[in-house]
This record gives sequence, structure tokens and C-alpha cells, in this order.
Amino acid sequence: MRSDFRFFHRLRVRYSEVDWQGIVFNAHYLTYMDVALTEYFRNIGLDYKQLAQEGKMDMALVKTTQEFISSAMFDDELEIGVRISHVGRTSYNVEFEIYKNGFEDMVFRGQTIYVNYDPVKRKSETVPDFFRSLVQAFEH
Amino acid sequence: MRSDFRFFHRLRVRYSEVDWQGIVFNAHYLTYMDVALTEYFRNIGLDYKQLAQEGKMDMALVKTTQEFISSAMFDDELEIGVRISHVGRTSYNVEFEIYKNGFEDMVFRGQTIYVNYDPVKRKSETVPDFFRSLVQAFEH
Amino acid sequence: MRSDFRFFHRLRVRYSEVDWQGIVFNAHYLTYMDVALTEYFRNIGLDYKQLAQEGKMDMALVKTTQEFISSAMFDDELEIGVRISHVGRTSYNVEFEIYKNGFEDMVFRGQTIYVNYDPVKRKSETVPDFFRSLVQAFEH
Amino acid sequence: MRSDFRFFHRLRVRYSEVDWQGIVFNAHYLTYMDVALTEYFRNIGLDYKQLAQEGKMDMALVKTTQEFISSAMFDDELEIGVRISHVGRTSYNVEFEIYKNGFEDMVFRGQTIYVNYDPVKRKSETVPDFFRSLVQAFEH
Repeated sequence: MRSDFRFFHRLRVRYSEVDWQGIVFNAHYLTYMDVALTEYFRNIGLDYKQLAQEGKMDMALVKTTQEFISSAMFDDELEIGVRISHVGRTSYNVEFEIYKNGFEDMVFRGQTIYVNYDPVKRKSETVPDFFRSLVQAFEH
Repeated sequence: MRSDFRFFHRLRVRYSEVDWQGIVFNAHYLTYMDVALTEYFRNIGLDYKQLAQEGKMDMALVKTTQEFISSAMFDDELEIGVRISHVGRTSYNVEFEIYKNGFEDMVFRGQTIYVNYDPVKRKSETVPDFFRSLVQAFEH
Repeated sequence: MRSDFRFFHRLRVRYSEVDWQGIVFNAHYLTYMDVALTEYFRNIGLDYKQLAQEGKMDMALVKTTQEFISSAMFDDELEIGVRISHVGRTSYNVEFEIYKNGFEDMVFRGQTIYVNYDPVKRKSETVPDFFRSLVQAFEH
Repeated sequence: MRSDFRFFHRLRVRYSEVDWQGIVFNAHYLTYMDVALTEYFRNIGLDYKQLAQEGKMDMALVKTTQEFISSAMFDDELEIGVRISHVGRTSYNVEFEIYKNGFEDMVFRGQTIYVNYDPVKRKSETVPDFFRSLVQAFEH
């Protein structure tokens, strides 16, 4: 529920994202999660683009689950709650909940597991300490 | 594994679907699943577009899980296995596995639960008998 | 150039919108134009979603030209200038220019012609007076 | 018209590509053009992916015009005509026309200008002779 989240990213549904039924096509929720996680990172002091470019940190989505609870429509303003619920040795878990702006009813819930990934070696690698510290400082 | 599937849809990765890492961006796998399920339906004798237009059957994705096992790149030919593993009273489960054409290693695995949906009443409804019969005839 | 525009919509490039070269894939610029025009409408007092739903006004893109002048990359903040340069009897022309936030160099320029469209009759129709008035009041 | 084209790529409209009006959202036509050009290249003996990877040839879209003549809907099979109408020193022009499979009426017409691009030097470069020869052999 809303109170589980200390960070929300707000975005507005684009016309190109709704389908024939007039509701957001399911694939776009994965993009919403990706956008919201980038903003969560920025909010706790991490510039994802810079980290990736400098080879200091990259990530790969390994598993994700989505539940579609109610519909979002064109022009709806959505609030996307993001929290990192667990940081393991080489991976971390992120939880997402989406609400319509001003409403309590949930639109969508998602969980993801990312692996910290070395783009040169092409394999998983220990989550860096600066990441672990920033996440813990924010979430606790 | 491949032998679990009696139907495969083949498609080629578009340039617009790969990201900065040169691999298919995760959201596009939901589109691939959607495209492959439409073709599965056509293959067993169901025209999804016509059924939806005539109000005889529509569907809503309620839950899905994806695992990203290896990467697909621009211009790769993918084989998307689709099977309906269970038909319940108002819902059905679909399983997907994606392979690169000619290779045994799995790229992706997904599970989805769809609810049979009445677009006028905006609620779930019993899966029609013709659907149940066509699926059982094909899968068994 | 920037001073030709009285309205700018700002958005940030999503990771899903960049391609293997690390730059925004061309098709997404059409989505950017669409998003920015919806916000331009909102800014002059038109709620596009409501007008379309009430059948008071809809539109169809009939012709568009795009020039790709420099590249936009992941996480860039873009400012999209929008202006309606001409309102004809059944159509109107919209011009777009995109700049990186804080820079003078143009990234993109686009022109579009929309036809005012009656979604029930499926044909073009005279641009409504309220639209013409709101545009003229804003642009002049 | 159809007889101007010696190459057609066929594809089927995806559910994710249609909008609330039930027709293909305009931005997807740029993706269709991109997909069809890759297939045109393959057809005349050029593997675009390999050329780009080996640094032998890359391309950048500099200008494009699209005309939306009639609508394409979900599940429509489209035939995308592609021809390279002019090869200049550092650029080439490509023309596209889209028809519904089995119908003579045009859905869409597009023109594009691509610059041959050196991805390392990040500037335009003379179109390679092998490209010019293969295009001329096919088109004439």
C-alpha cells in the first residue's frame, strides 16, 4: 500500500501507450517501472547513466512479476511507488506499486530482481558498497 | 523445454527493440508474448480480432512472470513456444518459452494468467465452450 | 528557433527509447510530438481526451516531415517547442522544434498537418470555432 | 503505385501498435519503414547488422516525410514497398509505400534521406562502392 513507499515518480499516460480497449497496453508497465527506478536512483544520489558509462555499475533484469489490478487510461496521471526491499550479494529486489493520482486504489503491482552486471566481463558481480549504503540510508 | 510446445511463432528482432546494450529491451518481451498468443489462437482456429469485435470473447492479462535467461540481439530470429497449460472457469494460463532459431538454449520464459472478460459488462465471465474445446483438442 | 515558440513541453529521454547507437530511435520523435501537442492543448484550455470522448473534436495526422539535426541520448532533458502556425477550414498546421535543456542547438524539427475529424462520420469536418479562437488568442 | 516497387516486405499489425481509435499509431510507421529497409538490404545481399558491427557502413536518418492516406488496423497484413530511388555521394533516398495485402488502395507513403555515417568519426562519409553497385543492380 501507499505507505510502504518513501518515493513516488509521477508520469502521465501517453496516447501512444493505450490500446484499442482504451487502456494502457501491458508492455508499457515494464517501461514505467524502468523509468521510475531511474528516478529513484537519481533521488538517492545515483546517476544511472553516468555509472553505466563509467563502467562502475550496470544492471540486468533477471525476473519480474506483474499484477494488473485495475486499468489506467490515456491522460491519467500515475504515481509509481518504488522501493528496494532487499540488497543481496550480487542482486537486489525492487517493488513497485502504481496508483492513480489522488486515488487509493491500486492499478498495478510489480516485483523485479536485478543482477548487478559487469558489462565488460558479461557476468554478475558484487553489488558495490556505495550502492548498498545509499539504499540502506534511504529505506531505513 | 522445446518439446513441451506444439506451437512456435517465429519473429525477427527489430532494430527499434534493442537498447543501448544491444539487447532486446525487456518490455518488448510482453509484446512478443502477445503477438505469439494471437498466432497460437489463429493456429487452433480462433480469430482473436473477430471474436473481440463481435463481443464473443475478450481477455485481460491479470498476472504475468518473466525470466530473462540469455540475451536476444538485433536481427536474431526467435522461436516463441506457446501453450495453454490450464483452462479454468473464467481464466486460463499460458506458458511461453523463447529460443533463438536453431539453438537449444532458452532466451526467455514467461507465464501469464488471462481472465476471460466481457468488454460490455466490464467483468470476468465463464470461458466459452468453443474455446475450451479447441484448446483441449490442440494440446492433448 | 527558440524564440518562435511560446510553449515548450519538457520531457526526459527514457532508456527504452534509445537504440544500439545510444541515441533516441527516430520513431519516438513522433510520440514526443504527440505528447507535446496534448500538453499544448491543455495549456491553451483544451482537454483533448474530453473533447474526443464527447465527440466534439478529434484529429487525424495526414502529413508530417521530420528533420534529425543532432542526437538526443538517454536521460537528456528535452524541451519541445510547439506552435500552431496555421488554422485552415478543416485542417491545421503544427510546428515542433526540440532542444536539449539549456542548449541553443536544435536536435529536431518537425511539421505536421492534422485534419479535424469526425469519428462518427469518419470524415473531415470544419475546425470548431472554440478551437480557432483559443489558438488565435494564444499565438497572437 | 505498386508497380514502382520491386521489393515488398510483408508484416502483420500487432495489437500493441493500434491506438484507442483502433488504428496503427503514427509512430509505428517509422518502425515499419526501418524493418522493411533492413529486409530490402538483406534481399539485395547486404547484412545491415554485420556491416554496422564491422564498422563498414552505418546510416543516420536525416529527413523523412510521411503521408497517412488510409488506416491500417489490428491484424491487417501489410505489404511495404521499398525502393532506393537515388544514391548520392554521401546520402541516399528511400521511398516506401504501404498497401493492405490484396488491396490496391495505398495506406501510407513515406520518403527518407539517409546519410552514410562513420560511427567512429561521427560524421558522414562517401557511400561505399559495394552498396552503390548492389542497389543499381537491383533497381535497374
